[in-house]
Amino acid sequence: MQLLTVGSVAFDAIETPFGKSDKIVGGAGTYITLAASFFNQNQGLVSVVGEDFPKEVLEKIHSRGIDISGIQIPEGGKTFFWVGRYHNDMNSRDTLVTELNVLGTFDPVVPVQFKNAPFLMLGNLSPDVQRKVVDQMEQRPRLIAMDTMNFWMDIALEELHKTLKVVDLLIINDEEARQLTHQYSLKTAAAKIMELGPKSVIIKKGEHGALLFHGGQIFSAPALPLEEVFDPTGAGDSFAGGLMGYLSSQEEVSFDSLKKAVIAGSAVASFCVEKFGTQRLEEITRNDIAERMSMLHQLSHFELTGYGAA
Amino acid sequence: MQLLTVGSVAFDAIETPFGKSDKIVGGAGTYITLAASFFNQNQGLVSVVGEDFPKEVLEKIHSRGIDISGIQIPEGGKTFFWVGRYHNDMNSRDTLVTELNVLGTFDPVVPVQFKNAPFLMLGNLSPDVQRKVVDQMEQRPRLIAMDTMNFWMDIALEELHKTLKVVDLLIINDEEARQLTHQYSLKTAAAKIMELGPKSVIIKKGEHGALLFHGGQIFSAPALPLEEVFDPTGAGDSFAGGLMGYLSSQEEVSFDSLKKAVIAGSAVASFCVEKFGTQRLEEITRNDIAERMSMLHQLSHFELTGYGAA
Repeated sequence: MQLLTVGSVAFDAIETPFGKSDKIVGGAGTYITLAASFFNQNQGLVSVVGEDFPKEVLEKIHSRGIDISGIQIPEGGKTFFWVGRYHNDMNSRDTLVTELNVLGTFDPVVPVQFKNAPFLMLGNLSPDVQRKVVDQMEQRPRLIAMDTMNFWMDIALEELHKTLKVVDLLIINDEEARQLTHQYSLKTAAAKIMELGPKSVIIKKGEHGALLFHGGQIFSAPALPLEEVFDPTGAGDSFAGGLMGYLSSQEEVSFDSLKKAVIAGSAVASFCVEKFGTQRLEEITRNDIAERMSMLHQLSHFELTGYGAA
Repeated sequence: MQLLTVGSVAFDAIETPFGKSDKIVGGAGTYITLAASFFNQNQGLVSVVGEDFPKEVLEKIHSRGIDISGIQIPEGGKTFFWVGRYHNDMNSRDTLVTELNVLGTFDPVVPVQFKNAPFLMLGNLSPDVQRKVVDQMEQRPRLIAMDTMNFWMDIALEELHKTLKVVDLLIINDEEARQLTHQYSLKTAAAKIMELGPKSVIIKKGEHGALLFHGGQIFSAPALPLEEVFDPTGAGDSFAGGLMGYLSSQEEVSFDSLKKAVIAGSAVASFCVEKFGTQRLEEITRNDIAERMSMLHQLSHFELTGYGAA
């Protein structure tokens, strides 16, 4: 099943307590499609880069079954560039440089061959750009998922609410869920978000896993206890990509397939943080991910027998 | 199987964003034995109260199958009194008053009929008082578990290390685990703690559940997503009590029974926070706990079939 993603393709420079990266390739669109490619080889990416973006990287993306005809390269444009520094706890970071460049005037165009894609992933972008993609679809996708961030809640809340109305699944982190709903309890926050539009909500909690809310049911997914997080950049996008890749490879969208998709996303994200940028994701195979999904199963599995049994 | 607990029996006065309690009965020993009483009616409590402590409360404790002959009542003594105020996020609190009173000179005496108890729970107390209880056991218990807190790490670290050497299981929260080991990763922190003595470690993460480390294996337990936490006081002790009560009712101490014990503790703790003090725990039945254990199972259960299967 086709999976269409809109999201940035960018240059990042990252500083962590473990070291400093060069100017490397990043961006939500890059991580999402790369993560999804383990499960789905029928993808399209809508994005924009500058003329400074290496052609061989675009070719590498293409070689993973990702249609890149929706990636615009405006003449004379420069690629979006982000510089960030992670604090010692790896849970917070400072943005040192944001050069929007071509992303500042990005007007997404969905290639005709993806206008009927049944799965659509809206990576973190301004909510009006996200909605422009939805508006170009000829047929309402079976599932539209979106990511967003606190920045858009601060400067474009009304636009964000409009986009929330047209999506099925919001993937968001715990702090953002609290900011969006002014609720501390994540259960109450998820309920409030569902009143805004999405039928399903996934709240990412970093090292604490994720919560899936769907049709009155809740699933609590574990995270792999890691000894070391080398670089958290792209973890959230890898999670969303693994999730959407897995889901679009399944026969139906149900609570059951969503649960497994969350586990698939968690597995891919757990690899992403092991090295700088996309490096680790480029090394691993589908089998590595399957193994880690089994580890997540083992980690959280228990049976109640006798007292306490269902 | 006998379960012996040493822990405070106290008066608390609690302020939360939802209201203020009167001066009510609290203390680690109270919560632990009350929580354990759902699974084990053969308990002993070693503690101390003042002459101001109501006899009918001691009788109520006794009526739940808890031997209170180890509770000292020094002449003219006053009961330990704690006043705390929770912040809006319910995750942090200020201690407004601590009157140690009889707890300041507490010299625990294990009743002869509990000197061979196979299960021993050391509630949060100064580490030398905890060790005094261990030293009075005639036979090495099958399992000694302990709680502690950052306060003892600050003022009695050397004593704490001595106590850690003689216990099997440390139950601690995430912040405390990080403070004790100077490790941010909870996996690494647990490994460091195991080098200090305990064969098993349980790290409580509040609303994010708990991690059990035992013999190279890890179990990630979910927490019930709650809409409201009314009063967190006693949640950690209820967790430990439910856990030890369950474990002491099982045929063996193994990774499998420890996993279920963590779920039992989580279930009891999820009730504890619903009302002030011990109120909610006094209302519920063993069936209510069984139901909540099933809810925790449902919340975290998933099966991998086909791709990703073990």
